[in-house]
Amino acid sequence: MKKHNFSAGPCVLPQEVFLKASEAVMDLNGSGLSLIEISHRSKDFIEIMEKARALALELLGLEGKGYKAMFLQGGASLEFLMVAYNLLEHKAGYLNTGAWSDKAVKEARFLGDVIEVGSSKDENFNYIPKGYTIPKGLDYLHLTSNNTIYGTQLKKFPKVDAPLVCDMSSDIFSRQLDFSQFDLIYAGAQKNMGPAGTTLVVVKEDILGKVSRKIPSILDYKVHIDKDSMFNTPPVFAVYTSMLTLEWLKNLGGIPAMEEINDKKARLLYSEVDLNPVFNGFAKKEDRSTMNATFNLTDDKLKETFDAMCKEAGINGLNGHRSVGGYRASMYNALSLGSVGVLVDVMSEMERKG
Amino acid sequence: MKKHNFSAGPCVLPQEVFLKASEAVMDLNGSGLSLIEISHRSKDFIEIMEKARALALELLGLEGKGYKAMFLQGGASLEFLMVAYNLLEHKAGYLNTGAWSDKAVKEARFLGDVIEVGSSKDENFNYIPKGYTIPKGLDYLHLTSNNTIYGTQLKKFPKVDAPLVCDMSSDIFSRQLDFSQFDLIYAGAQKNMGPAGTTLVVVKEDILGKVSRKIPSILDYKVHIDKDSMFNTPPVFAVYTSMLTLEWLKNLGGIPAMEEINDKKARLLYSEVDLNPVFNGFAKKEDRSTMNATFNLTDDKLKETFDAMCKEAGINGLNGHRSVGGYRASMYNALSLGSVGVLVDVMSEMERKG
Repeated sequence: MKKHNFSAGPCVLPQEVFLKASEAVMDLNGSGLSLIEISHRSKDFIEIMEKARALALELLGLEGKGYKAMFLQGGASLEFLMVAYNLLEHKAGYLNTGAWSDKAVKEARFLGDVIEVGSSKDENFNYIPKGYTIPKGLDYLHLTSNNTIYGTQLKKFPKVDAPLVCDMSSDIFSRQLDFSQFDLIYAGAQKNMGPAGTTLVVVKEDILGKVSRKIPSILDYKVHIDKDSMFNTPPVFAVYTSMLTLEWLKNLGGIPAMEEINDKKARLLYSEVDLNPVFNGFAKKEDRSTMNATFNLTDDKLKETFDAMCKEAGINGLNGHRSVGGYRASMYNALSLGSVGVLVDVMSEMERKG
Repeated sequence: MKKHNFSAGPCVLPQEVFLKASEAVMDLNGSGLSLIEISHRSKDFIEIMEKARALALELLGLEGKGYKAMFLQGGASLEFLMVAYNLLEHKAGYLNTGAWSDKAVKEARFLGDVIEVGSSKDENFNYIPKGYTIPKGLDYLHLTSNNTIYGTQLKKFPKVDAPLVCDMSSDIFSRQLDFSQFDLIYAGAQKNMGPAGTTLVVVKEDILGKVSRKIPSILDYKVHIDKDSMFNTPPVFAVYTSMLTLEWLKNLGGIPAMEEINDKKARLLYSEVDLNPVFNGFAKKEDRSTMNATFNLTDDKLKETFDAMCKEAGINGLNGHRSVGGYRASMYNALSLGSVGVLVDVMSEMERKG
């Protein structure tokens, strides 16, 4: 049976990406060699890496604007540290919108002063703080654009006199933004871009080289830029599969086309959450994420029935994060509107039964 | 045509591993989901991670001896830094046997004093230093067991009163050793273990927690041990494919069986290098690696002919590293004796022609 995969990440990727990646593991482009046995210094792989980096900048509309794209390892969790290593001299500001922001703050504090310019911890992060004050003279301001656990998403981004750094792990390539308002964007691949195992970092080059500390080579963005993301052996499979996903996105019409589909999926699901008395939304309406919809049953006694109905329908990965409970439907780029339809059908049926 | 892949890494893996990994990218164990779309917190993936870690310890004979195995990201290059972060308080010793040792030294110096206890830089690293003195009271001694670029390999390991740390990226699981003489072993996967994108770290737990510095979470071995290599999203595909390769090795008879095959391959190739007047070995005989054989043509004018004959025979990845030149035949675990035979045939034919 076809599964409808609402997993929060790693998550569903386009079927054609699974197919091409699977074929390449046996034989890359008729070369007689597997993708994963070729040298990363081979012409074939250098082309893959260059294409992946170029596609990322192109899709974000950042070509020719002083940005460089890198594919690294270590996930967003290593970026929490690298951002601070490369940019934190005196004091940085962080907007705390959830567990991932919290972790980013914790890691940055190993290297300098961090102030939280705002936080929604008081209500278990079910909203995005607004009206907060950003002090002058920060080394940078750090934001998390989408909060998977709580299902919240930043709709507006503050204007600041400092470099703007954004963790877009869970909503990059999902919606149109002026990406040039950011000076550094990073994203673990395993939501909208590819399999777990690589991280995209896009940085405006002129913000680098301003801290006085010596940066270990492996953590230095300048080193990775100078080496075209080949300072050390890159995660070949994850980069190749990310390239395939970015190609798929480009062929679909890029971010504008993707946003239209994502908005339809989110409207369909949130309408059901709002109209169906059996369910309650968790996140504040104005801050709802188009990527992760969090909701609860109004009556916990219905859980067993609802879970069984979901399983019956081939729905996978709908459990909420332990810190929020309830349900979380992750609707990343590759999840089809059809899969959301199947979930909404089950929710409607639940109402009739409930 | 079947290729004979002598690439220095990423490199050939067993054909059955390519096949199983390729199938899992379409559908993991009949689950209806791709390996790369499942949650890393799913039962399926937790089993994969636990099996990979257990197999690593079992194959190395380190079960029940106080060691923990981790699958991390960032390659050996990140380990150069992590080793120093976790172990370097006052002074560490490094044996410099090539470019990778050099890089390890450079990264460690960001965190403390490093002394080179020995070096073979004077002869472009074509031998392993011997008879060097190891000062007392080091925080640890760091070795590189095999040097891919030069084709040298440590045959004996020094006894020291400090923890022994070894980068085994290019010969782990290839030969029988008393692995319990080491306190920390690390290895990028992309030679004998799997695709690029994950790093195995095996550490004797009691050497940790002795430095006074605060260690950022992502660089702290204790954090990764406590979280069973799931502190952050692991590189799912690379860990799965490593698990498959370790299973293959176990089914083959483990390291003893593998060593026998590797010795046969190395004897076959080095005999040809020594007996064939058209070729010269690069590394000193007593320090020759069973993994990477480096050799040159005695007459550079033969290069074009030899390269064409290799291509004709389906031989891939034989170019030497730019810092050594000539040729390098990497004969990692999954390279068959048959492939070495094909290369030796071409070398013999070259002698007749040359």
